[in-house]
Amino acid sequence: MTTTTHRAAPEHVHPRDVPLATALAALADPVRLTLVRELAASEDWSRACGSFDVPVRKAALSHHFAVLRESGLLEQRDGGAKRYNRLRREEFEARFPGLLALALRAELD
Amino acid sequence: MTTTTHRAAPEHVHPRDVPLATALAALADPVRLTLVRELAASEDWSRACGSFDVPVRKAALSHHFAVLRESGLLEQRDGGAKRYNRLRREEFEARFPGLLALALRAELD
Repeated sequence: MTTTTHRAAPEHVHPRDVPLATALAALADPVRLTLVRELAASEDWSRACGSFDVPVRKAALSHHFAVLRESGLLEQRDGGAKRYNRLRREEFEARFPGLLALALRAELD
Repeated sequence: MTTTTHRAAPEHVHPRDVPLATALAALADPVRLTLVRELAASEDWSRACGSFDVPVRKAALSHHFAVLRESGLLEQRDGGAKRYNRLRREEFEARFPGLLALALRAELD
């Protein structure tokens, strides 16, 4: 049996409701680019929040996940004590064509 | 005869030397999006810095122009007392395909 946490479920914003400047700002950060690229290389819902290779502490990481949710890039769901992640590729692509593909190009860093 | 100012000539960065996160951050601002869109709708070198319809004071405007130069989006040249602007469309497009076109889509705001 899994343990559950009492934190609130994450709030999401659909990409169709995201202003362009918000989407650009979400991707204009090296840590968030790393998170997005690792998610793009992983199965949906396979990555828990603690599984990413980024040099930030937990509070900062939570902030980065919140920014990604608010930009329509990230969907999260709780499973037991962990929170799992999915990149909203299709929905984000429909709203901002080509932007995610550009963000995944690490050679442009 | 025109008067000349004694300020330093603007420093430029070519888009090929701009990291992706810097380019995204430059466009992730409503004032800078307006500047870029007005430039895109104007002839090269036709717009002086004071000619843009943005709700910011001169010091803030200078900062926004500096951010655009440092992201490879803007070329500036002094002519008399005025400073004129050109959007570096082709060079920026070669480095970040599709990004400027997306930024010009005001319906995504």
